[in-house]
Amino acid sequence: MKIGIVTGIPGVGKTTVLSYADKILTEKGIPHKIVNYGDYMLNTALKEGYVKSRDEIRKLQIEKQRELQTLAARRIIEDLSLLGDNGIGLIDTHAVIRTPAGYLPGLPRHVIEVLSPKVIFLLEADPRIILERQKRDSSRARSDYSDTNVINEVIQFARYSAMASAVLVGASVKVVINQEGDPSIAASDIINSLM
Amino acid sequence: MKIGIVTGIPGVGKTTVLSYADKILTEKGIPHKIVNYGDYMLNTALKEGYVKSRDEIRKLQIEKQRELQTLAARRIIEDLSLLGDNGIGLIDTHAVIRTPAGYLPGLPRHVIEVLSPKVIFLLEADPRIILERQKRDSSRARSDYSDTNVINEVIQFARYSAMASAVLVGASVKVVINQEGDPSIAASDIINSLM
Amino acid sequence: MKIGIVTGIPGVGKTTVLSYADKILTEKGIPHKIVNYGDYMLNTALKEGYVKSRDEIRKLQIEKQRELQTLAARRIIEDLSLLGDNGIGLIDTHAVIRTPAGYLPGLPRHVIEVLSPKVIFLLEADPRIILERQKRDSSRARSDYSDTNVINEVIQFARYSAMASAVLVGASVKVVINQEGDPSIAASDIINSLM
Repeated sequence: MKIGIVTGIPGVGKTTVLSYADKILTEKGIPHKIVNYGDYMLNTALKEGYVKSRDEIRKLQIEKQRELQTLAARRIIEDLSLLGDNGIGLIDTHAVIRTPAGYLPGLPRHVIEVLSPKVIFLLEADPRIILERQKRDSSRARSDYSDTNVINEVIQFARYSAMASAVLVGASVKVVINQEGDPSIAASDIINSLM
Repeated sequence: MKIGIVTGIPGVGKTTVLSYADKILTEKGIPHKIVNYGDYMLNTALKEGYVKSRDEIRKLQIEKQRELQTLAARRIIEDLSLLGDNGIGLIDTHAVIRTPAGYLPGLPRHVIEVLSPKVIFLLEADPRIILERQKRDSSRARSDYSDTNVINEVIQFARYSAMASAVLVGASVKVVINQEGDPSIAASDIINSLM
Repeated sequence: MKIGIVTGIPGVGKTTVLSYADKILTEKGIPHKIVNYGDYMLNTALKEGYVKSRDEIRKLQIEKQRELQTLAARRIIEDLSLLGDNGIGLIDTHAVIRTPAGYLPGLPRHVIEVLSPKVIFLLEADPRIILERQKRDSSRARSDYSDTNVINEVIQFARYSAMASAVLVGASVKVVINQEGDPSIAASDIINSLM
């Protein structure tokens, strides 16, 4: 089984690209599964009694958070390993998360060592397009990505962070551009890199 | 206890910002301690008999240096742990040090794993302002930071290095701009990120 | 013995710089050895029965590749340790390799921890000069470095990757510019950084 971690900042179009990837893999008849790291975090936290609601996760002590992150990563690997040798597992997460306390790595050592992917994908797009998409998307609170300089800085830190995670496990880091108007190009690019 | 590592290249105004942070934390009645990593290195080296004077530290064998770096980090954690759960510890050090042999990481694995901070702060400023401050500061030998391109490169490598250290322990990396004329803004920013 | 890892993207002139370094070290009477990591990989793979030809290396399972990488690094250290305390060992390799699956770190954790160098050198040059050199060099297939933007991106990722490797072992990262027309400058710079 080949594992790819697909990262990208809010507004880059990651969800759309992954749904295209799902379609392509289904058409090709390749056993696959696309999982969301945040969902595994929440479900593991609820099931194991760490928290009673989503909001409580952020308030957990730092040691408890790390424990939970590692546990969620292990659950993902358990589930993906059912795909067999020819399967492809895609993990939807972030290379960095922009928090009030700074850029938090989405793939710290205790997570990347468990996931041990073949490729970490950095889904990127022109900062102006990302800004436009964020403005259109009124369903999420994204007040902090309000100018292209900020978006550029997040993209840069995502690169540093992804490369640091990759060095720990010998994975490669692939920049994939989500071209406006045709998300299937990025989807194919991701799949081809894992074959 | 929350630990923040405050890094910044010579001339960025780190000492001033940290003295403001000290003042603010005292006013708020928050138990805190600001320590300088270099001082701990020197004191540990002298106390443990590694060297007889500051200059000898750089001449130590690389294995001895690492041993000393780890030991100094442990002493810091011992001292900061006396602050209790609500305390804030700030560690004054560098993300990279520009040496004749290149950019030396200030927070290599054996140090960052001991310090295990919540946040690594990158105190930055406009390279032209840093250059001006360095020229005014005749007390230190800073001949190598003689143009803004060099300063820019150091700032960039500090970012890569800090992010690599952060990935190892799951810390966040926060860029804090030291605005000319009001170092209290950066000081407040640092403190708020740790609360 | 001091170990320096010399990295640089194809076309930067690494082979020439290293042959100058060899000449200078011989003239100075310093015990030294310059080894190529790729050669050690191939020889180890053949000798240990991992593969029967060079092409098979890339097709090895990822776990086997890592095992081989670690083994090749150990062989290098064994050979370099014969140089004695005053010797200098230079290892010719890459900080990142541009593959169809993205930027693959040339010095992942399991390799850098074995090599444990004093300095990781990033041999760099103006992207336009690199492009010119690649066009002249018809002996190698280098179709993917066909524009300066790509070369710039490779150089940037090499920096992130080298710094992440350096943080793991406390090595420094030195940017060395290979100046058109005089590779001996870069060669001297590398040697001086290790003395």
